[in-house]
Amino acid sequence: MIGHGFMGAAHSQGWRVAPRFFDLPAEPVMQVIVGRSAESTAASAQKWGWEESSTDWREVIARDDIDVIDIVTPGDTHAEIAIAALDAGKHVLCEKPLANTVAEAEAMHEAAERAAARGIRSMVGFTYRRVPATTFARDLVASGRIGEIRQVRAEYLQDWLADAEAPLTWRLKKEHAGSGALGDIGAHAIDLVEYITGQSLESVSGIIETLVKERPVLGEGAGLSGTAGEGRGEVTVDDIALFNARLSSGALASFEATRFRTGRKNALRIEVSGSLGAIAFDLERLNELEYYDATQDGLEQGFRRILVTEHDHPYLNVWWPTGHGLGYEHGFSHQVHDFVGAISVGVQPRPSFADGLHVQRVLDAVERSSDAGSVWTPTAG
Amino acid sequence: MIGHGFMGAAHSQGWRVAPRFFDLPAEPVMQVIVGRSAESTAASAQKWGWEESSTDWREVIARDDIDVIDIVTPGDTHAEIAIAALDAGKHVLCEKPLANTVAEAEAMHEAAERAAARGIRSMVGFTYRRVPATTFARDLVASGRIGEIRQVRAEYLQDWLADAEAPLTWRLKKEHAGSGALGDIGAHAIDLVEYITGQSLESVSGIIETLVKERPVLGEGAGLSGTAGEGRGEVTVDDIALFNARLSSGALASFEATRFRTGRKNALRIEVSGSLGAIAFDLERLNELEYYDATQDGLEQGFRRILVTEHDHPYLNVWWPTGHGLGYEHGFSHQVHDFVGAISVGVQPRPSFADGLHVQRVLDAVERSSDAGSVWTPTAG
Amino acid sequence: MIGHGFMGAAHSQGWRVAPRFFDLPAEPVMQVIVGRSAESTAASAQKWGWEESSTDWREVIARDDIDVIDIVTPGDTHAEIAIAALDAGKHVLCEKPLANTVAEAEAMHEAAERAAARGIRSMVGFTYRRVPATTFARDLVASGRIGEIRQVRAEYLQDWLADAEAPLTWRLKKEHAGSGALGDIGAHAIDLVEYITGQSLESVSGIIETLVKERPVLGEGAGLSGTAGEGRGEVTVDDIALFNARLSSGALASFEATRFRTGRKNALRIEVSGSLGAIAFDLERLNELEYYDATQDGLEQGFRRILVTEHDHPYLNVWWPTGHGLGYEHGFSHQVHDFVGAISVGVQPRPSFADGLHVQRVLDAVERSSDAGSVWTPTAG
Amino acid sequence: MIGHGFMGAAHSQGWRVAPRFFDLPAEPVMQVIVGRSAESTAASAQKWGWEESSTDWREVIARDDIDVIDIVTPGDTHAEIAIAALDAGKHVLCEKPLANTVAEAEAMHEAAERAAARGIRSMVGFTYRRVPATTFARDLVASGRIGEIRQVRAEYLQDWLADAEAPLTWRLKKEHAGSGALGDIGAHAIDLVEYITGQSLESVSGIIETLVKERPVLGEGAGLSGTAGEGRGEVTVDDIALFNARLSSGALASFEATRFRTGRKNALRIEVSGSLGAIAFDLERLNELEYYDATQDGLEQGFRRILVTEHDHPYLNVWWPTGHGLGYEHGFSHQVHDFVGAISVGVQPRPSFADGLHVQRVLDAVERSSDAGSVWTPTAG
Repeated sequence: MIGHGFMGAAHSQGWRVAPRFFDLPAEPVMQVIVGRSAESTAASAQKWGWEESSTDWREVIARDDIDVIDIVTPGDTHAEIAIAALDAGKHVLCEKPLANTVAEAEAMHEAAERAAARGIRSMVGFTYRRVPATTFARDLVASGRIGEIRQVRAEYLQDWLADAEAPLTWRLKKEHAGSGALGDIGAHAIDLVEYITGQSLESVSGIIETLVKERPVLGEGAGLSGTAGEGRGEVTVDDIALFNARLSSGALASFEATRFRTGRKNALRIEVSGSLGAIAFDLERLNELEYYDATQDGLEQGFRRILVTEHDHPYLNVWWPTGHGLGYEHGFSHQVHDFVGAISVGVQPRPSFADGLHVQRVLDAVERSSDAGSVWTPTAG
Repeated sequence: MIGHGFMGAAHSQGWRVAPRFFDLPAEPVMQVIVGRSAESTAASAQKWGWEESSTDWREVIARDDIDVIDIVTPGDTHAEIAIAALDAGKHVLCEKPLANTVAEAEAMHEAAERAAARGIRSMVGFTYRRVPATTFARDLVASGRIGEIRQVRAEYLQDWLADAEAPLTWRLKKEHAGSGALGDIGAHAIDLVEYITGQSLESVSGIIETLVKERPVLGEGAGLSGTAGEGRGEVTVDDIALFNARLSSGALASFEATRFRTGRKNALRIEVSGSLGAIAFDLERLNELEYYDATQDGLEQGFRRILVTEHDHPYLNVWWPTGHGLGYEHGFSHQVHDFVGAISVGVQPRPSFADGLHVQRVLDAVERSSDAGSVWTPTAG
Repeated sequence: MIGHGFMGAAHSQGWRVAPRFFDLPAEPVMQVIVGRSAESTAASAQKWGWEESSTDWREVIARDDIDVIDIVTPGDTHAEIAIAALDAGKHVLCEKPLANTVAEAEAMHEAAERAAARGIRSMVGFTYRRVPATTFARDLVASGRIGEIRQVRAEYLQDWLADAEAPLTWRLKKEHAGSGALGDIGAHAIDLVEYITGQSLESVSGIIETLVKERPVLGEGAGLSGTAGEGRGEVTVDDIALFNARLSSGALASFEATRFRTGRKNALRIEVSGSLGAIAFDLERLNELEYYDATQDGLEQGFRRILVTEHDHPYLNVWWPTGHGLGYEHGFSHQVHDFVGAISVGVQPRPSFADGLHVQRVLDAVERSSDAGSVWTPTAG
Repeated sequence: MIGHGFMGAAHSQGWRVAPRFFDLPAEPVMQVIVGRSAESTAASAQKWGWEESSTDWREVIARDDIDVIDIVTPGDTHAEIAIAALDAGKHVLCEKPLANTVAEAEAMHEAAERAAARGIRSMVGFTYRRVPATTFARDLVASGRIGEIRQVRAEYLQDWLADAEAPLTWRLKKEHAGSGALGDIGAHAIDLVEYITGQSLESVSGIIETLVKERPVLGEGAGLSGTAGEGRGEVTVDDIALFNARLSSGALASFEATRFRTGRKNALRIEVSGSLGAIAFDLERLNELEYYDATQDGLEQGFRRILVTEHDHPYLNVWWPTGHGLGYEHGFSHQVHDFVGAISVGVQPRPSFADGLHVQRVLDAVERSSDAGSVWTPTAG
């Protein structure tokens, strides 16, 4: 695994726990974790249960005893590492977003295509596809339960930048993060809409902006929990993104990604409205899915709160009895299950680098639309 | 009162009930109701408790014993009636939207200005301002409880057109209704956002469209509950409107007005996010207001569900004990209270025709933005 | 109408509004309102739209032009007035609880039986039966949609006595109110359970108690909104009642009636669990009913929130379009509709005085069980 | 660890994960797992990551390299194993309920007292104390935020016996499970009320019963997920328990534990109402706590939904960013953290065997009250 921030902890937990619950076709060995600082990387290895630590990802990629590379670094480093790993014949799991630019993502996609021809697999880490409730939502839509899709609403609402004195972490610098609310959380909303609806965003019209333009530079710490240091620096990514999109079926979808919706902590919400019904999901209540069946007796229709914790719901057969909910990190175990399973049977796992590239193109189209006064902008490559 | 559809019933209930609960400075007399058909208008008079009925609004306006004209006809007739009434020295309450076009609304606004100079009052019927929870939301915002406004989300979601066979009522014909989801329900969202935030929408970017373009022509019946007749006709108004707006403070707001959000019956929802807190309202639960106070201890913050039924909440002192909720129609009693009160003390009631004209300009700007590929369009006259 | 407190306002609104929306078989005339004080009764007559006021209920009952007596006085006066009215050949609508003691209720029931033999009708004012959602709940249960009833939970939660300094109104004195939380609000829960399930409480085991035993004597004002005067007096009714009951089918139900559930304002909640489904109602959200259908696909089951505002839901055909909710007072219009309808066609309206007597016996059995250490106590006469 | 059913999986996950997130004072080694069948126990060892498996718990207890015994067997075996382990000088973590009878629990408590004198620690596995939201609820109550406790409502609602053909697992046989809904899930509600309020149940009055008295005997499988075999057997434990309790402060609490509340999957709900506020918890939404602050401005009071996922909420500092919820199993990691911590610093962990014995006495008092017609029955030893 390359990288050892917050995502490193989550991925480590996935690798550690998945084989203890699922019957995986292969037993993953958590061999080596790579970071920039020898000391802190060694500490992470010890903490999270990796056999070794290293500060040289190229050396690790070159090792014969390594089959899989899991990339959890900031987005600006994804392309170089992933392409090298794929070319070295390693299966690659890469955290989202795939890259910081369309060009990088295209190069990664090409590397993935080359690798696939040799049976080498690659996948992007959009783990919210692997929440049982979202997978179940996809199943309902795919089975026609909501009919023809009429409209989609997707929002990812947070409020951690509402405090104008929150410090300037790498997530707020374009050179590292690539994008702000749009790329970091909006990307999840885009991928999830495409996953659940089975449709693609074909054009977009919208606006992104940076509401708080300067923040205290980062003192100690990293990730989301850093504290403020002295002086101020410029926020170079957006913190609000609002856009409409045309889906491949012609239906309209509206999106919001923001870090200023006070009181909303991690509200990734998707509502898909169809001719026969609707489904609604909110990540803050990730064990639930709301479903409206418009084909029932008109007097008895209503959004129903399904507790997605039954044995036969997606991924649930290995976990706990009905009503004993899962948490955020379970998506990482499910991701390991799906990734290892796909490698084992030799099929392309989804979301592929092609999927990740497409999300990158949507993000890019939103930025271009915003720059051009919100005109409709196609997402095609 | 001119008109006797669904809105006629609601306004009649307001005139009948308001004086029984509030101590009004003047006792309204429900004198004459006007419609096109003598027979059905007489039936409405009998049903709703008006002393007389008439088919000639001009004659009624000319009567000396009439002080107030309440207009509840379709939007295409508002301008002619309201201007005549104002010029005849009658106070006018006019259902929203003020008119079907900006030009009509401007003429009405001018008539209102002329009338005001003579002490004649006019008001637009945006009754959702008079739900205790929305008034209380405005109070919280005005008193600084949510701080600087950072973002606004407003949506008015219905699903009664989700059935592609729902008939072609006058609300779906541009010549009568002026506008569809945008003008009929989006107008409420616009007014309510401006009311609660105290700000104005200065420019907009968005799209409107007609998802189902042909419907069965109307057979018998009127209003929302008509049944289908033979043949099909063209839907000439929009049924979905999605737009972003820039408020006078510079903050961004996003709007959605639609009749295709399956399972959402009357979900006029407003969420205002500020630097110190947030408020959220949903018309489907109109006795509640959610409030988030970001100034409290961080561990104890959460959206709180306020049951807006206390004696000291807006309008509530005359109604029932705590926890005994009000319904949709109470807004019409409150409207009568406020309108009669304003006439009595000789002040301009709000929303004024100027307010109504502004909403009309916003609707127009959204249509123009949509026609021009969603470019940002100023709302100024 | 005899009495003019908070209930007088509610009943007046029912009489005023019902004929404006429903096509009643007879047009009620709001003739005379009776109170103890000539002045304040005259004011109420003026305020609520009664033709005359009086301070002598016996004289009113004796009048030939009066057909219906509506009793909204405190419970200790119900028996005398109702029996006199029935014997005088007047149809009687009597607020709940029917009486303060079983003996009084029995005498009233006998008078009602005598009157019924002459075609004179009587009814008890348990208006929560006439909320569309509770009526619809009854319909679902009656049509077998939840199967065999397995368990019932009923609670009526308020918090207005949580303040130990809330004053000593007549509702807190046994000589006037008869009973406290048990009789005032617990009675509603009992009636509603019997109405929705179609079953009878056959025996009970429970406890009632008075948590705050002394309060400030009442100064000015009356009803729920009186203010505190000087000195303190003893609270002579219960403020908490907790009991279990055996229904006629053998199923268990548990009840709670309390004025100390901080933050709960008017939470009359009923949940009926059956072999095929469940329904749940909360008066604080009276336009909603939750319904769980256990016969659907196991993966898709969930409590669904039905907005009980459709045209074809009970009582709704005369009101507003879908999603435009009703309020507390609409139950009183529905009550007038049902009462006048029953008189008109000559059938016994429900809840009858027999139903009211039964509730009184349940209340009495709970008190006796509490006195006897919570032993199971039959409710039979 | 002795036992390897559903609870074995949960405890194993706790031992595996706790040291990866918390800085424990000692690193637990998952040495040996014990079961009755060599083959299936070996499979569990492999699956869950234990070094060895064994079928002889006595031998394991005798080993010098074992410091801690974790007992997750059915309740009828707890006493023998726990007492032997404590007497052998092993720290013991014992799943709830402590035992199947008061006599067994007393013997275990005595063994724990003897062991404590030698520095050997013991704890009962009421893990719902270790959900961040319940711990935080306890903190709010303890700090006086809800004032004097006025009333408590506790319910644990499930519906998995609503199907009359659900098979006869060991949980439905008194000889193994000791008790049914009362002991299995009611015990959690009792412990959680005592934990959150800091008070003790001093006397109880209630009823337990077995609604479905015969079920298909168990075919293959075990735990909650067994399938039906041929023939029918008697259910020898209760499936519904309804009781009231007097707390040490004199306040009343009411309890319900049932497997027949259709649609409720795992609804352990506690609401504590006090003179200054209230808190409400529902295990089906375990990342949330509702809190009502009655000391705030009366117009702004309301139950607020606190997302208990902040860095400074109990246990949360080692997990994910705000809004990324935990699941059911995290309680087991927290339990390991607390247990290992208490052993390390040499203090008595809670809930102690004394706490577990007390819960056992409450269960026993409820059964005796039920047998005696629901008379009030003291819980004292």
